[in-house]
Amino acid sequence: MLQTNEKYSVEEQAISAKKAAKKLSLLTTEQKNDALLTIASTLENNTEYILKANEVDLKNGKEKGFDEALMDRLALSAERVKEFANGLREVAELDDPTGDILLSWTLDNGLDVKQVRVPLGVIGMIYEARPNVTVDATGLALKSGNAIVLKGGSSAISSNQAIVDIIHKALDKTPIPKEAVQFISSTDRAATQELFTMKEHIDVLIPRGGASLIQAVVNNATVPVLETGVGNCHIYIDEQADVKKAIPILINAKTDRPAVCNAAETVLVHKNWLDSHKEELIQAFNDHNIEVYGDKATVGEIPGAKPAAEKDWAEEYLRLAIAMKVVESVDEAIDHIETYGTKHSEAIISEDEQAVSRFMSLVDAAALYHNASTRFTDGGALGFGAEIGISTQKLHARGPMGLPALTTIKYIMSGNGQTR
Amino acid sequence: MLQTNEKYSVEEQAISAKKAAKKLSLLTTEQKNDALLTIASTLENNTEYILKANEVDLKNGKEKGFDEALMDRLALSAERVKEFANGLREVAELDDPTGDILLSWTLDNGLDVKQVRVPLGVIGMIYEARPNVTVDATGLALKSGNAIVLKGGSSAISSNQAIVDIIHKALDKTPIPKEAVQFISSTDRAATQELFTMKEHIDVLIPRGGASLIQAVVNNATVPVLETGVGNCHIYIDEQADVKKAIPILINAKTDRPAVCNAAETVLVHKNWLDSHKEELIQAFNDHNIEVYGDKATVGEIPGAKPAAEKDWAEEYLRLAIAMKVVESVDEAIDHIETYGTKHSEAIISEDEQAVSRFMSLVDAAALYHNASTRFTDGGALGFGAEIGISTQKLHARGPMGLPALTTIKYIMSGNGQTR
Repeated sequence: MLQTNEKYSVEEQAISAKKAAKKLSLLTTEQKNDALLTIASTLENNTEYILKANEVDLKNGKEKGFDEALMDRLALSAERVKEFANGLREVAELDDPTGDILLSWTLDNGLDVKQVRVPLGVIGMIYEARPNVTVDATGLALKSGNAIVLKGGSSAISSNQAIVDIIHKALDKTPIPKEAVQFISSTDRAATQELFTMKEHIDVLIPRGGASLIQAVVNNATVPVLETGVGNCHIYIDEQADVKKAIPILINAKTDRPAVCNAAETVLVHKNWLDSHKEELIQAFNDHNIEVYGDKATVGEIPGAKPAAEKDWAEEYLRLAIAMKVVESVDEAIDHIETYGTKHSEAIISEDEQAVSRFMSLVDAAALYHNASTRFTDGGALGFGAEIGISTQKLHARGPMGLPALTTIKYIMSGNGQTR
Repeated sequence: MLQTNEKYSVEEQAISAKKAAKKLSLLTTEQKNDALLTIASTLENNTEYILKANEVDLKNGKEKGFDEALMDRLALSAERVKEFANGLREVAELDDPTGDILLSWTLDNGLDVKQVRVPLGVIGMIYEARPNVTVDATGLALKSGNAIVLKGGSSAISSNQAIVDIIHKALDKTPIPKEAVQFISSTDRAATQELFTMKEHIDVLIPRGGASLIQAVVNNATVPVLETGVGNCHIYIDEQADVKKAIPILINAKTDRPAVCNAAETVLVHKNWLDSHKEELIQAFNDHNIEVYGDKATVGEIPGAKPAAEKDWAEEYLRLAIAMKVVESVDEAIDHIETYGTKHSEAIISEDEQAVSRFMSLVDAAALYHNASTRFTDGGALGFGAEIGISTQKLHARGPMGLPALTTIKYIMSGNGQTR
């Protein structure tokens, strides 16, 4: 079956993936690693084919008037294809979590109980413009013994199709059935929606992209979802914050890569700290061309700050802009984060242990920072290796999701006739 | 606020639970254990009040013509109230999973990273007739630092209300705010549906009851769901099965407690085994008054077997009836389980290592048994202590769910000014 042929329905593709997942689950770690290395070199050897397909997407993007950021995410080069290949080589180096016996014990009646880590089965990946997700997600899925159904954004359809063609070509030389990587080539919205309810064939949906894509999946899917990535991250500068830590952390979290999900979007500043350090803060905003949208107190103190509307507190600016609110206590900061945060990454800058401890206990988010930038919420930065996304939900996986997030457990009991 | 007063909306109750969860998350293990012991003794001291309320439910049930099984599940007695109290005392003895540091490491830049186990927050419990769920779920939720919103079935409304009244009376003497236990007293379906989408205030929904209740929650909730308990469990008797193990295991799995989810509902029998052991199998079915619904081959071999309709393969009989199919290989058994199983508990009876290994690798279920009864899939039997349900889904928790299933993690990073 040609997985990329529109003659096959989304359901047929999912069924085909499920069958392939069974075969894949029987392979050894070495077989899976070899396959990843084969995909890596095959991608490199077919760089030209991929770049040619990418040109089609870039041309379409230009015609549709995509902005610079989007064009940048779309654009491939020989160097980026090499990065894809190296990413797969890194995944091949990671420990294979499947087959691990996590717990084992024997009941009084002699029944042996083992809790074993196994692949989830079939992963449905729904994503937007970045073609690198096609490669990264495939690598992580295969390494953890899972089949994958890829539904990328229409803006990258030609690049994604070419990448999957090459992956299939490579898999033909490995024991992994090429049906383990399914690409939905229809750009129809209905094709995405079909995935939402395919509980029989798909074990989990992972949406990666903007807030509206993620909400559409979360609100409409009956297949379990691993919610990722929307980050309305806060930096709380406490009354007892050291200005030498507070300003560099704030500037790093806001400006290092403003378009990513672990960038800061709101700064909450304690009134008394502001009284002592207003000049340094204004200087930092000016030096880095940061637009400020503030509450009444902020607008009174920070020259050039525009009044914040209600929506500013919930907004991911993803550019050099920040919302700012003056607060009178750590509890007021915690309440604000509770109301507007997205449970991604939140920081407190303070030398007051009690305030820090309260913040760490009461703020409900995947990653909490004391005197450090929110930018560390990232599989690579934390030393997990590659990640399939950053979970902002509380069930199954939280924070950066590496290979173990793509697995589940089985209890395996061995007896010699035990009954109850 | 009186949580059981209909003047308060479901949303107000959920918000109130969320506030209480914050306070609860700051309490020590000792404080939580003391509270559980206080609830236990208060329940015992108010047995009469509870039994009086239970009489109202029993009277209504009789008038509505409930069957014996349902009346039995509803009926309380002084002894059962004592069991509730002892259940809470057992939960007090269990390790508190919250606060555990699961992983910790330091990055090269000196940033300290800790993965800490924390409560989920607010648990929404949707259940049917058994009033014991009110006590068990409350105990497990509070011990793991979570608030709980209880929505029990209308048939037990008076008993549940009385139990919650006593729990609130007990909590008044403890540091746990009584708002941490919310009881939805409306018997309106709309009240249940309101819970389905309350993502802001409820962290997880756990449905416990029949297949239709569970499907209604899974298909309509946008709040993450922990799917529990529907068990269409199979016993596969392989060509190489030892008859001295096969028959006692089959009979135990079918007859020990036919109404529970880990009881066997279908037996798959290898053709060659059946040829040698038909008489013993017929004898066993007769001795235990087991009705058999079979495929063509079964009807030809087992006297009295009725022809199975398609629906028989998917049915949880929950009584002394079983579906039977004759198969020609372990792979045919695996395929049948894949098609009709509910990912709960599946058993292979065999002395053939290869067949066992194939079954263990390819069958996708929470619990797989070799030469043992499926009846062991149970928190108590496996030594987990009390359970809040048996998960048949693959994300977050699988199989019997004890206290850890009611927790999530937080990454807590401590630095001294680290930026990227």
